[in-house]
Amino acid sequence: MKKLWAGRFREKTSMIAESFTESISFDKLLWQYDIQGSIAHAKMLGKQRIIPRKDSEKIIRGLEDIAKEIAAGKFIFREDLEDIHMNIETALISKIGDVGRKLHTARSRNDQVALDLRLYIRSEVHEIISLMKTFQRTLLTSASKHLNALMPGYTHLQRAQPVLLSHHLLAYVEMLQRDVERFKTVYEGANQMPLGSCALAGTTLPVDREYVTQLLGFDGISRNSIDAVSDRDFAIDLLSASAVLIMHLSRLAEELILWSTEEFKFIELPDAFTTGSSIMPQKKNPDVAELIRGKTGRVYGNLIALLTVMKGLPLSYNRDLQEDKIPVFDTVDAVKSCLVVLNEMFPGIAFDTKRMRDTAGDAYSTATDIAEYLVKKGIPFRHAHEITGRIVLSCITQKKHLDELSLKELRTFSPLISFDIFPFLKPEESVRNRKSLGGTAPDEVKKQIKRLRKTVGSKK
Amino acid sequence: MKKLWAGRFREKTSMIAESFTESISFDKLLWQYDIQGSIAHAKMLGKQRIIPRKDSEKIIRGLEDIAKEIAAGKFIFREDLEDIHMNIETALISKIGDVGRKLHTARSRNDQVALDLRLYIRSEVHEIISLMKTFQRTLLTSASKHLNALMPGYTHLQRAQPVLLSHHLLAYVEMLQRDVERFKTVYEGANQMPLGSCALAGTTLPVDREYVTQLLGFDGISRNSIDAVSDRDFAIDLLSASAVLIMHLSRLAEELILWSTEEFKFIELPDAFTTGSSIMPQKKNPDVAELIRGKTGRVYGNLIALLTVMKGLPLSYNRDLQEDKIPVFDTVDAVKSCLVVLNEMFPGIAFDTKRMRDTAGDAYSTATDIAEYLVKKGIPFRHAHEITGRIVLSCITQKKHLDELSLKELRTFSPLISFDIFPFLKPEESVRNRKSLGGTAPDEVKKQIKRLRKTVGSKK
Amino acid sequence: MKKLWAGRFREKTSMIAESFTESISFDKLLWQYDIQGSIAHAKMLGKQRIIPRKDSEKIIRGLEDIAKEIAAGKFIFREDLEDIHMNIETALISKIGDVGRKLHTARSRNDQVALDLRLYIRSEVHEIISLMKTFQRTLLTSASKHLNALMPGYTHLQRAQPVLLSHHLLAYVEMLQRDVERFKTVYEGANQMPLGSCALAGTTLPVDREYVTQLLGFDGISRNSIDAVSDRDFAIDLLSASAVLIMHLSRLAEELILWSTEEFKFIELPDAFTTGSSIMPQKKNPDVAELIRGKTGRVYGNLIALLTVMKGLPLSYNRDLQEDKIPVFDTVDAVKSCLVVLNEMFPGIAFDTKRMRDTAGDAYSTATDIAEYLVKKGIPFRHAHEITGRIVLSCITQKKHLDELSLKELRTFSPLISFDIFPFLKPEESVRNRKSLGGTAPDEVKKQIKRLRKTVGSKK
Amino acid sequence: MKKLWAGRFREKTSMIAESFTESISFDKLLWQYDIQGSIAHAKMLGKQRIIPRKDSEKIIRGLEDIAKEIAAGKFIFREDLEDIHMNIETALISKIGDVGRKLHTARSRNDQVALDLRLYIRSEVHEIISLMKTFQRTLLTSASKHLNALMPGYTHLQRAQPVLLSHHLLAYVEMLQRDVERFKTVYEGANQMPLGSCALAGTTLPVDREYVTQLLGFDGISRNSIDAVSDRDFAIDLLSASAVLIMHLSRLAEELILWSTEEFKFIELPDAFTTGSSIMPQKKNPDVAELIRGKTGRVYGNLIALLTVMKGLPLSYNRDLQEDKIPVFDTVDAVKSCLVVLNEMFPGIAFDTKRMRDTAGDAYSTATDIAEYLVKKGIPFRHAHEITGRIVLSCITQKKHLDELSLKELRTFSPLISFDIFPFLKPEESVRNRKSLGGTAPDEVKKQIKRLRKTVGSKK
Repeated sequence: MKKLWAGRFREKTSMIAESFTESISFDKLLWQYDIQGSIAHAKMLGKQRIIPRKDSEKIIRGLEDIAKEIAAGKFIFREDLEDIHMNIETALISKIGDVGRKLHTARSRNDQVALDLRLYIRSEVHEIISLMKTFQRTLLTSASKHLNALMPGYTHLQRAQPVLLSHHLLAYVEMLQRDVERFKTVYEGANQMPLGSCALAGTTLPVDREYVTQLLGFDGISRNSIDAVSDRDFAIDLLSASAVLIMHLSRLAEELILWSTEEFKFIELPDAFTTGSSIMPQKKNPDVAELIRGKTGRVYGNLIALLTVMKGLPLSYNRDLQEDKIPVFDTVDAVKSCLVVLNEMFPGIAFDTKRMRDTAGDAYSTATDIAEYLVKKGIPFRHAHEITGRIVLSCITQKKHLDELSLKELRTFSPLISFDIFPFLKPEESVRNRKSLGGTAPDEVKKQIKRLRKTVGSKK
Repeated sequence: MKKLWAGRFREKTSMIAESFTESISFDKLLWQYDIQGSIAHAKMLGKQRIIPRKDSEKIIRGLEDIAKEIAAGKFIFREDLEDIHMNIETALISKIGDVGRKLHTARSRNDQVALDLRLYIRSEVHEIISLMKTFQRTLLTSASKHLNALMPGYTHLQRAQPVLLSHHLLAYVEMLQRDVERFKTVYEGANQMPLGSCALAGTTLPVDREYVTQLLGFDGISRNSIDAVSDRDFAIDLLSASAVLIMHLSRLAEELILWSTEEFKFIELPDAFTTGSSIMPQKKNPDVAELIRGKTGRVYGNLIALLTVMKGLPLSYNRDLQEDKIPVFDTVDAVKSCLVVLNEMFPGIAFDTKRMRDTAGDAYSTATDIAEYLVKKGIPFRHAHEITGRIVLSCITQKKHLDELSLKELRTFSPLISFDIFPFLKPEESVRNRKSLGGTAPDEVKKQIKRLRKTVGSKK
Repeated sequence: MKKLWAGRFREKTSMIAESFTESISFDKLLWQYDIQGSIAHAKMLGKQRIIPRKDSEKIIRGLEDIAKEIAAGKFIFREDLEDIHMNIETALISKIGDVGRKLHTARSRNDQVALDLRLYIRSEVHEIISLMKTFQRTLLTSASKHLNALMPGYTHLQRAQPVLLSHHLLAYVEMLQRDVERFKTVYEGANQMPLGSCALAGTTLPVDREYVTQLLGFDGISRNSIDAVSDRDFAIDLLSASAVLIMHLSRLAEELILWSTEEFKFIELPDAFTTGSSIMPQKKNPDVAELIRGKTGRVYGNLIALLTVMKGLPLSYNRDLQEDKIPVFDTVDAVKSCLVVLNEMFPGIAFDTKRMRDTAGDAYSTATDIAEYLVKKGIPFRHAHEITGRIVLSCITQKKHLDELSLKELRTFSPLISFDIFPFLKPEESVRNRKSLGGTAPDEVKKQIKRLRKTVGSKK
Repeated sequence: MKKLWAGRFREKTSMIAESFTESISFDKLLWQYDIQGSIAHAKMLGKQRIIPRKDSEKIIRGLEDIAKEIAAGKFIFREDLEDIHMNIETALISKIGDVGRKLHTARSRNDQVALDLRLYIRSEVHEIISLMKTFQRTLLTSASKHLNALMPGYTHLQRAQPVLLSHHLLAYVEMLQRDVERFKTVYEGANQMPLGSCALAGTTLPVDREYVTQLLGFDGISRNSIDAVSDRDFAIDLLSASAVLIMHLSRLAEELILWSTEEFKFIELPDAFTTGSSIMPQKKNPDVAELIRGKTGRVYGNLIALLTVMKGLPLSYNRDLQEDKIPVFDTVDAVKSCLVVLNEMFPGIAFDTKRMRDTAGDAYSTATDIAEYLVKKGIPFRHAHEITGRIVLSCITQKKHLDELSLKELRTFSPLISFDIFPFLKPEESVRNRKSLGGTAPDEVKKQIKRLRKTVGSKK
């Protein structure tokens, strides 16, 4: 097959070089965006009389036919045609003849591929946001259901203070809300139209870039042709946002794994989302959560991959940029699949709220409440803290719970302690009293659920 | 020294553990933010009568004194006091006595350090944005000065088409503009007030978090205490934005290095910003540009460092989070120093515009113009492209420039070629004609400079 | 399809979970290693009478048949069967009946997949080493051919001193030699037999692990079953070694790109390994070199991916480990393809040795020789260096070359300079005199070529 | 201060450039290696009569004096002198006069810094290996002590089969053994002498590089001067090896954190190595383990930092290489401090072996033993597995333990089950029977301890 750029060359491309440099094996994923972009471009060429209107129409019909063929799985992608652009253009020429050779007027693969990738990212980001919102709604539903469920709040993975399970779940809704905002910013960054930048310098032909921008529904337009063909910020932004998202999911996954252990036993994962062992039939493995945690590696790796590609590249387009696609495609696939599977699995999780409550009340989880009680009695916090420390130590030595101490015993630590301390030793009371904004009190948590429901919105 | 949390403990902290876990050696950098936060907190405690008003005032005066001591270099930071928070609180107590023990009421180091880091990032991001804008102005000034200077535009580091040097410089202004937007988003993300989240669950004391928010000039307030103490998104966002920024700078640095070579010879760097060799006295090395390129490693590394720290951490606060500071501090230092040195060095760069023009006109840089000429004559682009390819090949064989071909010779390639082709073979004409939006034509470039000047704004 | 581990489960695996957790889409690449391992395992089970000998033989024949089917492309891999292990075992059972259910005795997928991956890596590392040696030979051939070719040696990308092109090429042979050693170490690390570790604790059945080790040609055997199923060091080692290798190749690629520019013009790449532009027919782009440089990103990313996966995983096997495969496969593919294409392309590179020589003699490349000349006359090096610096500066001011200065002029800088300085001003002489071990003198370079030829060995 | 390379320059270095490019603030760490290298170099210069012998001796005495001053903290490092090399050379000249200007003969900072860094790494790797061996011995001691302690072996963090605590601890000894081997390889890679490569091309002076090699105790010598000054493989190898080491430590840290939870309660960390909470006095936080886990980020980041620096650098020396030091220094510091603190903390860990044993016998941990029992009765493994699965499911439904089923009940699942099954249901028996090589049986574990003791060796 003769390359479309072969005019100047005397030797044929080596088969090895061809297979080394081809991208069709992965960039075929972009086919619909490539065709969408080419149709808009052809429309503009016709409108501007850069090519005759009827040629433009013929090209568009040809492209539409090709789209149908690809969608139907009837199109054969050829490695010797390098990439998705050449595959489609060649098919167009063979379908509509010489007129097809006019499509690439006032365009280069440099701006074309930038366009395709932006269209792809725009579309995928939209979908990722929608999956995140669904997951937020799932979490909010679960949070509403568990407004009376206490659990131990952890710091350093040590039980620290009782909190509401709802409050804990809302922490993830907050993280996801930041992710939603982050992906909206990614969307805006990608939503700029580069076509018309051509190879790097623009064109002498009377193109109408605003028209193409409007046809493709872009918000803005690139204003420096050199930058437009060498910029991959929008792809890195996607990878950065995905890295933070998967980090959040890895934290949730870690908790699901911990909570599924015999030791924690806070939850039981739905059978349909766990797998067994080939040698230990009693096992119920949290594979889905483990794989979500594991996929963090892939997403971080993809981010570093593209950053590495871009480091120190002189302007403008360099072929290194072809290495942008696999990290982007793989990341989109990873985060989407994690969200999809979480959306399915999460509603099936059974929380053992009794067990959670029992452990929340365990140990000395209301020690802080004693310290705050003493503060209210006028003791400087650091003293209050120290007194409480001695009370706890005495409990540990005597193997007693805090609420098993008598008032007399308590008063040996501070004469300011009186009978009104006892309610403060109960986890339920501890939670109820933490009414500070963003605190774990049920009233405050309800308020936050209400606010978040509004922010997230209902499913369209 | 007795630890402030030592009440419950029977053994002293091991010296080795102490030195392993201390953070004062680096978090002392946060001193002014820690004091600023503590003053606001104390004000609130007084206003809410959680502590007596006069205690609040005493604390504030004490903190102000400490701030002065630190600023004057008279404060001794102690490793056995672990971190900046304990160093300052201990100093306060020793200065004002028992009243100082009331400062930490309704607060934990978990929310305190989140506050300090947010204050620090807010302040540094502000400065980074200002340095970027200065550099944009520097580039715009240079672009305005070189509106008549032609240079070869490169793709694949091969001369492709003539462009304006101004146009090339504006590509960096565009990149920096995206960086400015990215850092503004970082600022917004950091600008949320976490104090009052306490250890993880909020507090039973009647704090007024909105008041603290207002005192410290935050835009918003964290609304989930568990999230607030375990969230480091705002720090990762800073590192991601910095990674893209330094990547852009590494590209510029690469070009400065290339352009300084004997081979390119497009620029001469100012003596004051190059260094010599200890053995080759004739060398004038672009060390500054090389180090900027080299610092890319550090910034990428810091991003991956913090992402790694956060992977799979269960909620809420874990001591791993202490490892957030060094990557953040080091990154801020790296990007600021690169921008500072660029701002100083760039105006001193001497562009050899004659040499640039000569190479721009070299070779076959107007081949694309021939192809577009043929398109205007009605030849389908791919044919036009092929014909041009044959013309170039013939020139190469004959060792001729494009404008050394006679009309007769040219017409052997296509009868549609006529005398009006000759202007198109001149680089100046090629550039002048690329008037498409974002193209390299001087008129278009002027328009973009004007727009960008407005966007960037003048120095306050 | 009923899962082989389904006994204990009441709900079927969700389709979404199934597709999320499957690995067959990529681990089918391991088919031959899986079968090779299973045959050895079956042989051992028979020998030890853990299963009847004739069952063992039947299993082996069945596996051999399956291998043939897969090799012939007739085997259908099924996603609902999760992974390569289950696909093959299920096919075996459906082929030979109930006897097939005996294969998995005294084995778990945990040790099985560790075995498969080690077999794969062993085999691929062998091939990578062979490709590297071929490239070393290619470079040595080129170095031998260019023993008289001078070029400018660069530091800071500034011409520093003349060196032999051969000497420069040998630098890459040295790097590759370190890579060969590194990959040999990777081989040794991978060459340990894990089978028989079972799920994590070993087995109560009388397996003979040494026998399997011997059958599969391993050098050693894992000696801790918990470690054996949770260890992926051998895979990380492969990725680390590959990161260094691709870094070396990226440096070479950078030089090929620079040397192909119009500005350097040191080489011309073979047409068959460059590509043209769709809009600029005169371009001859070093795409292959650019893509090699670009693939660095992918390999670095894969290393960070697997390191991230492994961070903080408790023992022993966790499903996260499934995420080891794609980084490993992708890296192997990347480095092999880079070496293959370099091996093909490099011999076709045309060095413009005249141009190289001209630039080597340019400027003040023998300044160091003057300094060393003065040292030999007894001047302390730092003085000699300063004097030389002044000589160069005077040349620059007068726009003269070093060898255009008269003896009289030279002696104004130091009276110790006499007529015998002139030979030292010629690049050829400069090179000839650098006879220190590892220096650029032709005699020394010849010696190194000879040594390296022996080290690399001839192609088997 | 006049720069030693200033001869050719007309403008002074900008203060900003000076502070941007200086490295003395961190490379002063190399002082003893710089002096050690200079002494060897001076000795050689004298021996070869490149400088007079008495000058050589004077230089050496001067350097020795400087070393003493630095060691005594009396030396003032100056930023305006850029780096450690210039600081020491300048001090030498001011101490011994003009003779000092002869030290830098036949040397460049390019080979000098390569030497210094190799000497530093050699020394630090030696120390890291020694710390790892100490930790191996600590683990072996603990393993010997706990040969009768059972614990649940985990896969997917689910209890899978009982194992010996010793066996589990030995898994880490194995990992560390691989680390030791890896660091030995790093040592070998670093142990090559680069001095005499000069700037990049060797020297015309009659140096004796073998003599310097011998003086400094190197194993080998670099044989290509261009490679020698641009190679940082030895530093990357250190960072790669450290990344694997810290990954291993992060896994141990994760387990220490998990085991310290109220939920697992397998261990109690020594008070001296935990810290308390400023608001929750009952907390005993595993900060040391958390920080080890957290430092993984830093080490991974440093690896990616240096790989990024090296990507695509043309030969030979580039100033980017200065960015090698901080990642190397910081990594050495991080891994050393983690090992030191572990070596102190680990012996103080109290294992609650009763609790471990209780959980090991919990649930259905001997299910695999039933399956293997059935295999021994002749049932194909997959059937045996399925039958066992049904037995477990029935236990779960009836809320019974496996050993609470009667023989009659058991026989409803398979008539081949007889009275001899009961011993197999006990965890102690399960462990005792896993005698396969590398399995968890006490006899096997003892054998491995013995072997590992020999491998690790005793402390010199």
